[in-house]
Formats: sequence, C-alpha cells, structure tokens
Amino acid sequence: MINIVVKLNEKNLSTPEQIGETAKRLIEEKKFGRNVVAVVPSTELINGSLEKIAFSLSDSPTERELDAIHSTNAQIAASLLSIAIQKRGFRAHSLNGWQLGVRTTKKTAGHARIEELNGDVIIERFKKGEIVVVAGGQGVDEENDITLLGDGGSDTTAVAVAKSIGADRVEIYTELDGVYTGDPSTIQRARKLKDITYDEMLELSYLGSKVVHPRAVELAKKFEIPIVVRSSTKNVRGTLIKGEIEMEKNLIVRGVAYETDIIRFTVGYESLEKSSLANLFNTLAKHHVNVDIIVQSVMSEVKPTISFSIAKEDLANAVKVLEDHKEELGFQFADFEVGLAKVSIVGSGMVSNPGVAARMFARLCKENIPVKMVSTSEIKVSVVVPQDDMIRAANALHEEFGLAEELV
Amino acid sequence: MINIVVKLNEKNLSTPEQIGETAKRLIEEKKFGRNVVAVVPSTELINGSLEKIAFSLSDSPTERELDAIHSTNAQIAASLLSIAIQKRGFRAHSLNGWQLGVRTTKKTAGHARIEELNGDVIIERFKKGEIVVVAGGQGVDEENDITLLGDGGSDTTAVAVAKSIGADRVEIYTELDGVYTGDPSTIQRARKLKDITYDEMLELSYLGSKVVHPRAVELAKKFEIPIVVRSSTKNVRGTLIKGEIEMEKNLIVRGVAYETDIIRFTVGYESLEKSSLANLFNTLAKHHVNVDIIVQSVMSEVKPTISFSIAKEDLANAVKVLEDHKEELGFQFADFEVGLAKVSIVGSGMVSNPGVAARMFARLCKENIPVKMVSTSEIKVSVVVPQDDMIRAANALHEEFGLAEELV
Repeated sequence: MINIVVKLNEKNLSTPEQIGETAKRLIEEKKFGRNVVAVVPSTELINGSLEKIAFSLSDSPTERELDAIHSTNAQIAASLLSIAIQKRGFRAHSLNGWQLGVRTTKKTAGHARIEELNGDVIIERFKKGEIVVVAGGQGVDEENDITLLGDGGSDTTAVAVAKSIGADRVEIYTELDGVYTGDPSTIQRARKLKDITYDEMLELSYLGSKVVHPRAVELAKKFEIPIVVRSSTKNVRGTLIKGEIEMEKNLIVRGVAYETDIIRFTVGYESLEKSSLANLFNTLAKHHVNVDIIVQSVMSEVKPTISFSIAKEDLANAVKVLEDHKEELGFQFADFEVGLAKVSIVGSGMVSNPGVAARMFARLCKENIPVKMVSTSEIKVSVVVPQDDMIRAANALHEEFGLAEELV
Repeated sequence: MINIVVKLNEKNLSTPEQIGETAKRLIEEKKFGRNVVAVVPSTELINGSLEKIAFSLSDSPTERELDAIHSTNAQIAASLLSIAIQKRGFRAHSLNGWQLGVRTTKKTAGHARIEELNGDVIIERFKKGEIVVVAGGQGVDEENDITLLGDGGSDTTAVAVAKSIGADRVEIYTELDGVYTGDPSTIQRARKLKDITYDEMLELSYLGSKVVHPRAVELAKKFEIPIVVRSSTKNVRGTLIKGEIEMEKNLIVRGVAYETDIIRFTVGYESLEKSSLANLFNTLAKHHVNVDIIVQSVMSEVKPTISFSIAKEDLANAVKVLEDHKEELGFQFADFEVGLAKVSIVGSGMVSNPGVAARMFARLCKENIPVKMVSTSEIKVSVVVPQDDMIRAANALHEEFGLAEELV
C-alpha cells in the first residue's frame, strides 16, 4: 500500500467551506487505496486575536508562553479537518506535536529542529483505516516545553513524517500548481517544470521562491524522499522534486528568480593589513545581520574595499553595528546603496556548461542593465542590479536561456 | 514553606484587565512567601467561535476532536496568565494537562476521572521560584487522547494537584465570597459561614450550590485537604471547608438550599406482588433517567404506588421509558406532576438532634405550604413543595433554624 504525506496550505483551512473541500480531496486520495497523512500549518483562525491579547498583557511576552499559545492554532485546525473528514463517513485522527512524539532541540534564533518523531503512532492509525491529521511545525523539547519549528516548520514536519513512516512521497499543496521557470505573474511565458532536482529547488527556495521551504528540501534530499509540488485546489499534475532528473529539452538554466530590497554595503580600509574579512563578518553575524553576497576587491593601485549585500530589514542594525565597532574593525569608511535587487538563474546543467555566467552578463549588457555585484555557485549565478531593472532583467534572462519556449 | 493551590474563576480571566488583576493577586500570595499553583478553568476566550465552526463542519463532531479543541481554551488562558505574571517581574510557568502528567480514565458519560498526576513537575518549578499555572479540567488517557474532566473538572484538578504536592490548602475563588447559609439574592439575611464540614458542603453542592463541585469536595474529604472558598476579586475572609468544625452558636442547621423544576412521577400497581422497586429503577437508570427522591407507599386499603422525583430535562425520556416498558414493569398507571421545587436544610448537627424534620414540617404547615415528598439523610432533610412557594419556604426555614441571626 502506498503511503503519502500531504502538506496543506493555509488557504486549505481558511474557511469552513475550504476545510470541507480539503476533506473531500484527502478522501479521494484515500479512496485510491492510499494511506494518507495530512500535515496542517498554523492558520489565522484564532492566532491574530490571541496575539493581540498577549501583547496587551505584556510588551514582551516570553517565547515559551507565546509558542504554547500559537501551537494551539495548528492543533485546532487539525481537529476541525478531522471532523470534516469524519462527517463524510471516513475515519480521521488528529495528532498534536507531543502526541506524535515530535522531540525537538530547544528553540534558538526563532526555531527548533526536529530530533525524532514516532512514526509508529501513525502506522497504528493506518491499520484502523484512518486518515491521520498532524499539527505541523511543532514539537516538544527535553523539558516538555512546546516548541515551534519556525519558518517552513510544517514543510519540515511533512518530510520528517514521511521519513518516519517510509512514505512514498510528500505532496506540498501550494497556491501555484507547481514549480515554474519564473514567477508567472511577472515573467512572460513562465512554464511549469515537470521535475527539478533537490539542489535546484534549494537554490530557488533560498532565492525567495516560497513553494517549499529550503529546510524541508534539505531534509528530503538527505533521506531521498520525492516531493511533489501541486495545486492546493485543482487536481492537476504538479512538479516532482527528486535527486536526478532527465533534462527537459536540455535546459541548462531551469529557473529565474529575483528578490527585492537588497542593500549593498561597502567598507573601505586604509591598507590591506588593516582589513579582516573574518573580523567584519563575525561581528555582523554576532549581531544577527544576515549577509548574502560578499565581494572583496584588492587592487594594487586603490585602497582595499569589501562589499556585501544585506536585506532591507537588517539595515538599521547593520549601520549600528558598524558604528559601534568602527575602531575595533579598523575600517576607514563605510557606505551603503539602496534601491537594488537580486536576479538569479538556477540550473544543475551549469556545472558542465561553462560560459553560462558570461552569456548572462552579455545579455544584461545588451539590455543596458548595470551589474553591481555577482555571486556564483555550482548551479546558480546571482547578480545585483538596480531594482527598477529587476523585472526586465529577469524576463530577458528567462528568454535568453530558452525557458520561454514550450517545454513539452 | 506553605504551598497553596488557587482555583480561579472564569471571571478572573474574562478580560485582559481581569487577567492583570488576577496576576497581581497571585503575586501577593507569592510575596507572602507561599508557593503558589493557580488552576485555570476553561474560559469563553475562544471557545464559542470554534465550537460554531466545528458544528458548521458536522452536525455531530466526534467527542475526541471536540475535546482536543476545547482543551486549548484553558491552555491559552494559562499561558496568558503566565505572561501577565511575568510582565510584573515574577516568574511563571504554564502547564497543560499532558505536561503535568495528568493521566485519566477514558471519557464516559461526559467526563473522565483523574488516575494520577505528577506533582514533581510542580515541585521542580517551585524550586525556581515560579508561580505555576495549570490548565484545569483536562488530562490524557491511556491512548494519549486529550480528555476533559467535565463538570467541576477544574475544582477536581485543583484538589488533585494539592494532594500531589502536599499543599496546605486549596483556595477556590468564586463570585460569592464564601459559603452562605442560603442564597443571598433570595434568602433574607443570609450569612457567610466561617467554616463547614466536607459532608455539609457535599450536601449543599448536590443541592445546587455552585460554589464547589461535589467531585472536588469528595476528593478533598478523602485526602483531608482543607478548602477555602473566597472571593475571586476581594481579599476578604472566606469559608473554610474541613473535616470537623466547632459549631458556630450551636447551629444544628447550617444552610438552606433549593432547586427548581422538579417533577414528581407516580406509578401505581394493581397489587403489591406486581410492583418491583428494583425493576423500575434499574430500567430508568439503564436509560439514563436520574431519579432523586423515592417514596413508596404501601397501605393495606389502597393499591400500592411508588413516587419519585426527576429533573425537568429528563421528563420526555422518563415518559418514553415508562411507555416502552409498561408490560414488563407491570404497573397499572403512571402520571406526573410539574411545577414543583425542592427545599432542603443541611447540617451535621441533625444526627444528634432528632426532631429537626418535625420542626421543619411544622413550620411549613404554619406557612400553609404543602409538602409533596420528603427525603432525609443523616445531615439533610429535603421536601418537595410547589415551586411558587419555594422562596417563601426557604426563607421561613432559614429563619426557623436561627440562620438569619448574627453568627459572629
């Protein structure tokens, strides 16, 4: 018998009608003879108002109690979905994090990590013919405190559940119906991919594609669990994420992604001796400034500079950290540029196809789009460009690498 | 160091302001050098709307899922109260049923019973100087399903917690500020009692006094844990419930209680041989008709009859049960009388004071109040009277037995 884990979307649970529709869809899977686990994310059912009450009681409620409150959200959604399934004559059984034995680390920097999970609890329910509904994104630490897994927590729960019960695949229900070569709302003739590798998906996820959280992709890659990204509402074919894929039409580049509100910092030193990459980035990291692209320029005739990009929300913090540590970091000046964006191309084929980056730069040059920073990995090239040029750059690259053509 | 368990009232948690006030009050107890456990009942914070959603999904949601949803209510309230305590610079720690290791039986007939509870979890938190806030009325059964303790569940949790940590007393915060000789809203010059025995409190609880649930009183009696009933808002002296008390002013009767909407059934038989108390009441019990007072009249010159009283909500059911089993129960006729009420007097002193019932009947006779049924126990006499005479009867008896006089 095939076991599948379905990770639901917030929209699947946003109204009683949606909950009913979702119940029907899970029952369809069950009728196909599959064992089904549904993982529900935290929804907005009750969260908003409770958070307001908590903050009316204290400016800074403790994380332990806030998490305990928030965890009830997915728990309630899991029970409601179970009720909707039962109403239609099928058996269902909700499981909270602690009921599923989801042991996690203590929470640090906004999230806990899953250490173990008792899949036998689910197997037992399968034997009774039940659809199992799991409250995603939560667990219990060694002190029996309720912990939240943070961003991408439900995706991660889904993959961990799949591993623990030896599921055949994880299905991620999303608002789109798969992984696209670019965001269909801005990229002309963006196409749905039939399949994509874990690594490509990871790069796309880190680049802002919200389809599957990178934590979940990493875990799926580690355990070699196939993920299918599909529509949360329509029953159409989605995109399969797995280890190795056969290239469709030998596409070297498989997707284009972009990210707005990038800020470029430049720090200049009097001399090379005074500059220390390690000092600079250790200090920034210690103060929770997330640095993305780093470019060091050392030329004999000019003074050395280090440039790095950060997200907009870290700007104030970054300025403060640099001011507070000017002496100790030994730099001469620091300035920053706003109004920038990052555009990236991703594809496993790049590894064996040199010249992809050069072709990218040539096309951007032809489009008169200035490149401010560059960062490359084995399967990705990212450039920082003026934000005003972002969509144009993404579309040009989408076309340049043949993504706008019919894939099938 | 003194350990106390405070069972809060729904009102203590009804608004953010109330939660703040309650936090202050618990902190006062802590400042006195006491270890404090607060037990929170389920509140109306989120319950209503969720229940509506559940019933929009299904006419008959399963009890397991409904209980899981309801349990979040007290859990959220416990976290919110903890946040309010922490905001004021004191340490607090919320505990859900499963975190406290509250093991219960499976739920039957609307409630589960506590089998064990891990007080060490609380002792550990005391060592850290924390006020512990427990979500009352809930636990976990052997299948790790969330169970609700049903009516009086939070009171019961409070007493069970007190037993498990060897607490010095349980304080029950109520809307009244103690146990009264009668309901102050209807009984003239009703007085607050300084103390009362478990048995007296039990009788009063079963008679409709909502101050402490009889399940909790029974448990407290078994473990000899003193209960103090006091105001949830004002810091005034309450009423102490314990095993043995010194009579205040030698009051034989300690309280007057009443209950509305009593129905008297009368079943008549052709002959004594055909009547069987056992058959009749077994059949009624099997069909969940709760019978209170039973009176059998057997006189040689008339045909035998059995009368019994039931609550209004059981009427339709009782009529159906009698109709369905007429043949087998062998009675000749059955009729019922509505518009009745029960008035009771309660006091440990009755045991050694014969003639209390006689004095009660004499006074009711003087007041021209007809007595329809009588039931006595060692420390209680109940009469069924016309509902229209109920308040007048209660006041007359309250005065008759000296309760209206100054107690102190």
